[in-house]
Amino acid sequence: MSDVPLAIGIDFGGTSVKTGVLYRGNVIDDAPRIDTQAFTEADPLIQEIAKSIATLRKNHPKIAAIGVGMPGFVNFKNGLVHNLTNVKGWRRVFLKTRLEELTKLPVTVENDANCMTYAEWKRGAGRGMNDLVALTLGTGVGGGIIANGNMVRGAQSVAGELGQTSIHWEGKTGTYNNKGALEDYIGNNEIAARAAELYAAAGKERLVEECSPARLAKDATFGDEVAISVWEDVAEKLATALMNCCYLLNPEGIIIGGGVAKAGSILFAPLDHKLRAQLGRPFSENLRILPARFGNEAGIVGAATLALEEAGFCVDD
Amino acid sequence: MSDVPLAIGIDFGGTSVKTGVLYRGNVIDDAPRIDTQAFTEADPLIQEIAKSIATLRKNHPKIAAIGVGMPGFVNFKNGLVHNLTNVKGWRRVFLKTRLEELTKLPVTVENDANCMTYAEWKRGAGRGMNDLVALTLGTGVGGGIIANGNMVRGAQSVAGELGQTSIHWEGKTGTYNNKGALEDYIGNNEIAARAAELYAAAGKERLVEECSPARLAKDATFGDEVAISVWEDVAEKLATALMNCCYLLNPEGIIIGGGVAKAGSILFAPLDHKLRAQLGRPFSENLRILPARFGNEAGIVGAATLALEEAGFCVDD
Repeated sequence: MSDVPLAIGIDFGGTSVKTGVLYRGNVIDDAPRIDTQAFTEADPLIQEIAKSIATLRKNHPKIAAIGVGMPGFVNFKNGLVHNLTNVKGWRRVFLKTRLEELTKLPVTVENDANCMTYAEWKRGAGRGMNDLVALTLGTGVGGGIIANGNMVRGAQSVAGELGQTSIHWEGKTGTYNNKGALEDYIGNNEIAARAAELYAAAGKERLVEECSPARLAKDATFGDEVAISVWEDVAEKLATALMNCCYLLNPEGIIIGGGVAKAGSILFAPLDHKLRAQLGRPFSENLRILPARFGNEAGIVGAATLALEEAGFCVDD
Repeated sequence: MSDVPLAIGIDFGGTSVKTGVLYRGNVIDDAPRIDTQAFTEADPLIQEIAKSIATLRKNHPKIAAIGVGMPGFVNFKNGLVHNLTNVKGWRRVFLKTRLEELTKLPVTVENDANCMTYAEWKRGAGRGMNDLVALTLGTGVGGGIIANGNMVRGAQSVAGELGQTSIHWEGKTGTYNNKGALEDYIGNNEIAARAAELYAAAGKERLVEECSPARLAKDATFGDEVAISVWEDVAEKLATALMNCCYLLNPEGIIIGGGVAKAGSILFAPLDHKLRAQLGRPFSENLRILPARFGNEAGIVGAATLALEEAGFCVDD
């Protein structure tokens, strides 16, 4: 164990901050969750995170690096968090600098969907691939891209925003005034709202609250035609956005995680069919569409793995 | 001159094959065009190309490499041309191998839009950029992507097919059964057909043949409202596809060439507006939308430049 470096991964969410210790790709210890919404300013929350780190380091003195996955735009180079829409007080926060001051360890700050992508690429379903697209389906739709064996971050390190890509040039107006954003059709809440509509239209009134993806997946499995048609619709729309990724990037793999992906074959079977049906042969014939390996731990695993690599360690263990 | 390598670039089109000699980024000599459609099989045409090369080498003995840009899917690694839809007899042709046999020079084979992208990236409007998207607007819509300072080719080296990406999940059915492909809305012929429709609707009957992009650009410049609305529509649809590229890749530059791009500000002004209006700030604030530097010579320049790099020469002169 002494030769393999340990790292701390932090999954910073709108509800809670989760902090864990990674050893050989496994989360072997963690700190109590921190309630994100209990803080109205950034710095007190950063100090609380630093306390969690200090506690974990007592039991794991060989921690070599810290990685943080953030739910918003991040400048990867300098660790600046531009803005968090769901957390108060986070505007232009130099998180990397501050956390390095407090911990005296190298800190890497990255977007959460990129951390998930990193976890799947280095230790999960995308291991060994040079070109892949990863996405998380939940309240929002996040994504990450690997091309030529490197993460694609782009000019301002905000690339990979699959949820903001359009599936309809005259569609709904989204967060950035963008029309037809995928996220505005297949986010958790949009799926539930759509399902409630379809149940009403079929004369089987059901509350939006009773239309969670988990419930809809279960009902579809048992043959509920409305639920099946909801998943067909999600698959069709998701297939369009992924088709665009395929024509642009010709990935070897598409890796899908997040709560909505737990629907399993109810989603994956029609998605696979609808996507491949629209791809030219060289785009389709070696393409693999895979469920993510990591669930809730993806953020911690990805952030910690990335931090180790950035600190110069080899993570191919 | 003796220290700077020369290369031959070949722009293989559905109508003609153009062959030129590149020196320091300039085409300094060329061979007579070969009529592509005069050949029903691949090999006689390859032999004719080899003759052009031999003739050019008499005057330029220091040719170090040959690059070919092809209008179809190409395996960049082994120089296999999968299939050309517009040229008879081209199915699974090992062009690189055959042309190396005939010329005894290193040959690089690449997709034509990637060659154009390469020309703009190395010697044109995208020089110095690490992340860019280039596209050509003509009968079809082609594209190429640079990310992290490398060309994105993907798993089967067919990436960059911007024209096949969808702008409408329920749109027109395209070449690969894909719905809403950009090319099926803003290709030359589609623009002309749309314009003829709009003229008819406005009670100003005009033949499709009288609705070339060049003519429509001129008319729009002189205030023709139908022509202006055609370009607004092209800009809106193109903006959607480019917005998708921006959210996925966060490029520093978007470089637009090809015949339709000659419309100039009649196209670029509404495109710039409609694209930026739909982008979050970090995607938009440093983004440059630029006309391509190279016109008809883009293919030759790009293919020759790529061939020199592949043969190990530095082209940053």
